[in-house]
Amino acid sequence: MSDDPTRSRKTAAVQRPAGPPWRVKMHDVIFESDTPAGMWFDVALLIAILCSVVVVSTETLPSYEGSSTLYRIEWLLTILFTIEYVARLICARHPIRYAVSFWGIVDLLSILPTYAGLILEGSGSFVILRSIRLLRVFRVLKLWRMMDDADELSHAVWKARHKVVVFLIVVLVAVTISGTLMFFIENQLQRVLAKGDTAPPASQFSSIPQSMYWAIVTMTTVGYGDIVPQTTVGKFISAALILLGYSLIIVPTGFVTAELKSSDTDRESEPSVPCPRCETRGHRADAVYCFRCGQRL
Amino acid sequence: MSDDPTRSRKTAAVQRPAGPPWRVKMHDVIFESDTPAGMWFDVALLIAILCSVVVVSTETLPSYEGSSTLYRIEWLLTILFTIEYVARLICARHPIRYAVSFWGIVDLLSILPTYAGLILEGSGSFVILRSIRLLRVFRVLKLWRMMDDADELSHAVWKARHKVVVFLIVVLVAVTISGTLMFFIENQLQRVLAKGDTAPPASQFSSIPQSMYWAIVTMTTVGYGDIVPQTTVGKFISAALILLGYSLIIVPTGFVTAELKSSDTDRESEPSVPCPRCETRGHRADAVYCFRCGQRL
Amino acid sequence: MSDDPTRSRKTAAVQRPAGPPWRVKMHDVIFESDTPAGMWFDVALLIAILCSVVVVSTETLPSYEGSSTLYRIEWLLTILFTIEYVARLICARHPIRYAVSFWGIVDLLSILPTYAGLILEGSGSFVILRSIRLLRVFRVLKLWRMMDDADELSHAVWKARHKVVVFLIVVLVAVTISGTLMFFIENQLQRVLAKGDTAPPASQFSSIPQSMYWAIVTMTTVGYGDIVPQTTVGKFISAALILLGYSLIIVPTGFVTAELKSSDTDRESEPSVPCPRCETRGHRADAVYCFRCGQRL
Amino acid sequence: MSDDPTRSRKTAAVQRPAGPPWRVKMHDVIFESDTPAGMWFDVALLIAILCSVVVVSTETLPSYEGSSTLYRIEWLLTILFTIEYVARLICARHPIRYAVSFWGIVDLLSILPTYAGLILEGSGSFVILRSIRLLRVFRVLKLWRMMDDADELSHAVWKARHKVVVFLIVVLVAVTISGTLMFFIENQLQRVLAKGDTAPPASQFSSIPQSMYWAIVTMTTVGYGDIVPQTTVGKFISAALILLGYSLIIVPTGFVTAELKSSDTDRESEPSVPCPRCETRGHRADAVYCFRCGQRL
Repeated sequence: MSDDPTRSRKTAAVQRPAGPPWRVKMHDVIFESDTPAGMWFDVALLIAILCSVVVVSTETLPSYEGSSTLYRIEWLLTILFTIEYVARLICARHPIRYAVSFWGIVDLLSILPTYAGLILEGSGSFVILRSIRLLRVFRVLKLWRMMDDADELSHAVWKARHKVVVFLIVVLVAVTISGTLMFFIENQLQRVLAKGDTAPPASQFSSIPQSMYWAIVTMTTVGYGDIVPQTTVGKFISAALILLGYSLIIVPTGFVTAELKSSDTDRESEPSVPCPRCETRGHRADAVYCFRCGQRL
Repeated sequence: MSDDPTRSRKTAAVQRPAGPPWRVKMHDVIFESDTPAGMWFDVALLIAILCSVVVVSTETLPSYEGSSTLYRIEWLLTILFTIEYVARLICARHPIRYAVSFWGIVDLLSILPTYAGLILEGSGSFVILRSIRLLRVFRVLKLWRMMDDADELSHAVWKARHKVVVFLIVVLVAVTISGTLMFFIENQLQRVLAKGDTAPPASQFSSIPQSMYWAIVTMTTVGYGDIVPQTTVGKFISAALILLGYSLIIVPTGFVTAELKSSDTDRESEPSVPCPRCETRGHRADAVYCFRCGQRL
Repeated sequence: MSDDPTRSRKTAAVQRPAGPPWRVKMHDVIFESDTPAGMWFDVALLIAILCSVVVVSTETLPSYEGSSTLYRIEWLLTILFTIEYVARLICARHPIRYAVSFWGIVDLLSILPTYAGLILEGSGSFVILRSIRLLRVFRVLKLWRMMDDADELSHAVWKARHKVVVFLIVVLVAVTISGTLMFFIENQLQRVLAKGDTAPPASQFSSIPQSMYWAIVTMTTVGYGDIVPQTTVGKFISAALILLGYSLIIVPTGFVTAELKSSDTDRESEPSVPCPRCETRGHRADAVYCFRCGQRL
Repeated sequence: MSDDPTRSRKTAAVQRPAGPPWRVKMHDVIFESDTPAGMWFDVALLIAILCSVVVVSTETLPSYEGSSTLYRIEWLLTILFTIEYVARLICARHPIRYAVSFWGIVDLLSILPTYAGLILEGSGSFVILRSIRLLRVFRVLKLWRMMDDADELSHAVWKARHKVVVFLIVVLVAVTISGTLMFFIENQLQRVLAKGDTAPPASQFSSIPQSMYWAIVTMTTVGYGDIVPQTTVGKFISAALILLGYSLIIVPTGFVTAELKSSDTDRESEPSVPCPRCETRGHRADAVYCFRCGQRL
């Protein structure tokens, strides 16, 4: 596994610092989760992050707006995250490199908005900045033992990337053509057919972008129902498009599944050592003797 | 199969009682389904449970509220379930252990609400207690021959548990970020853009929790349509989020499928011929020598 | 393939009749699709069935109600189907056995409603009888060469039947518990909370059956939006139920897929003849020599 | 790979022309993407196509209707596409054959509508013609290196075509029967039950085609909610139909997935070492002798 570039890069980024023993120990607690202290730190951080998310969300509810309790919890959490940020800066091997890394910026962005709120009054537009704090959930995530699965997932997605690009282009083309078609049928055709007579009811397919939004909502089977065909022709065409789009969009599932499965197979069969006598491969991981010639492995 | 911890624990919980033969026979009828009498008992119980569910549900329909027929059926079923509960208490090997077990509590809870309704008048809040009676369906289920499939299903889910946790965290993060983003765009941005002018129409994304509810409803492709983006930017962003979320949420299907398949493979390779010397199983179909001891097969 | 019970039974049902040559030939045209005449008959029948479906459907459109053109096409098709039914009766080996078979009854039901319309005036309730005519599509279907795929599909479904039963019970329990829970939260709880004050708005979760309908619509991700939670608690619970139900209901896909795959594997690996010298199996279908020992197969 | 009929046909269509060197070079730039110039041409074309799509879509937004900026960009793009079309005509080996080929007609149709708009004033009905320009996206697509994946996808779909036909027929039958059933229950039955009394509320299942549209929208789990059952019986039947339809429509996913997987396996086994005597590939990983000629590998 040591030749996995992703992991080795990550490991390099959180190397043990040189320096006094307290700094090394602090580093282990904050950046690693092997020791009990490190694990407790991760759990505490996870709880703090979840609390922070709940506070940020609850503040936007009309009945909790301007609540002083939430305000105090918010400040408490911000101070805790500030201490954490300073501690990471102190015990990282390369403080500057940490500060400009992805996670360093996320850590900084997770405390800045609250302080900025002190200076600027109209802090409404900072709500988006605060949401970046959520990215810290990933940080704790990557330290855990379920990391192999996350790696496997991202590996499968990575292996299927070309197919995903092909899929996205196909979706884009399908959405554009369907959208234009439905705009033509539901909007333009109606105007042509209703010429002179009473004005037709305002179609919900008011423009091509609107129709493309409808096509995406429909093809992914979300189907809000805020935009629906109202003419018989429109319903017929959209029923056909639904069946087509449904088949089309359900295929890529197979791609990632196929990649997951083949990576499973690779993992199982690859680390098998060949038999020293007959060079056969494909032994079980717990094999002691070659299944073909009986030679001790 | 006898080394499966789940099954052996279950078997231990319903051990045959010591005592007079009628108690042993009664135990076999109630707790086992191997004998004809045991099977008929299970079928009768299943029908009683389904009747009970139908009665509880129908009582809430306005046209059937306070129906005396339903009231009588309800009491008949409650008395039957009471007899069953007492019978289980009598013939269980460890009555106390049964009474405090999960299924013992479920059995008790399935009869208590009706009796409580006699004492307390406002029995409206007991409707939830009654619904626990449904858990008894699982009890009958586990005695049936389709049990292997249920085991296999739970086994596959259990093997994929780390991936499910990763998936849930990913969904949580995606939902929080999408929700906050849409709240920002549909609510905050609209207020900023419409300053001074006519008040903007009340956005359906009234708070972050509401937006997160929208994000879950959308990403799982349920798409009620009670909350939909109304601005052009919001529609554009939500179309992108739908495509992203759709790809994201469809991946875990592959996980469980993959686990199911690999457990299938395990099962298939198991019934291979055991090694004549060390009794090991799990040889490749084309193996000539035992992989464990090197004995010729 | 001759040991497949489904196919052999079907073949037996359409055996060649004894009798004059014209009857045998007519039988081949009507019941088989190997000859050119038989294939043309099938295609003509397919077109007639599709026309009939279109006519039956179109008749219910307000603008086409009582159309004399449709009336004439309907009678033309009915006469054609009558001729076909009589022809099948004449050339079947066992006319009585055909008449009481599934397809015989379907054939009869596809012509009766139109004649019944002559006698009875209020033919509105016969629309359902006419729709049975659609079952004839399956008849043509089974004669075609894509039959192997239909067999494979039904075989996979059949092999997964125990899992499907488990799945349906799980869905039933999940739907009942979710429905009751949401009925309790959205309806009962609201009434308790709003006591004395202004009457709460009429909840859409008016009864447990209604809530169970909501649960099915939601868990299958159909999500009409005619019933949606309106309280904050209800939205929170339903978001959790959606995630749970989504995971729950998506699992069985894997079952059938897994069955399809394993039946694929079975088919590929089974017909391999073992090597006459070393008894190795697993040769390619087009192998001429044993891959292990080089022996000619 | 050279024996793939699809690819060899395509290669034949864009053969290098005879003639002066500039024509050959121009051909390489326009029709191939191996050279840097060819790749830049493709990228430029892709950007132009995307711009064109954005312009066509934006023109239909009420706030941008008749915008002179969009008008100018439109003309600029049309002139560019015209130059491209003429260039393709000049450097194609068989200009006539190119002009009447699928892509030649697409190229022509992508420039004609704008010119036609000059002559005809009411250019509203040409919006559909313009949308054909989108098909050009596929042209660029096929030149790229992700082509293998597109081939694989279309190959899997092609291999599953019989199953897709079976699936479509099954869907058609299911939709027609469900639609007719729901039309009968929600519309006809209501009229019968409400005879004499107050007129029943207008059912949303106004005709069989409308009900079939509902069935497609429901079975694909799109679920707009514009047509929903309103009677208790209708809700019960539609809940059953949803569960049935859901299981039914989700099966074909497995088909394509299965095809994808088996084609994956084919590909993986292909790059094995060829037989030194007969050059055959596709040996098992553990093969010792060539399966075709018996030569030791």
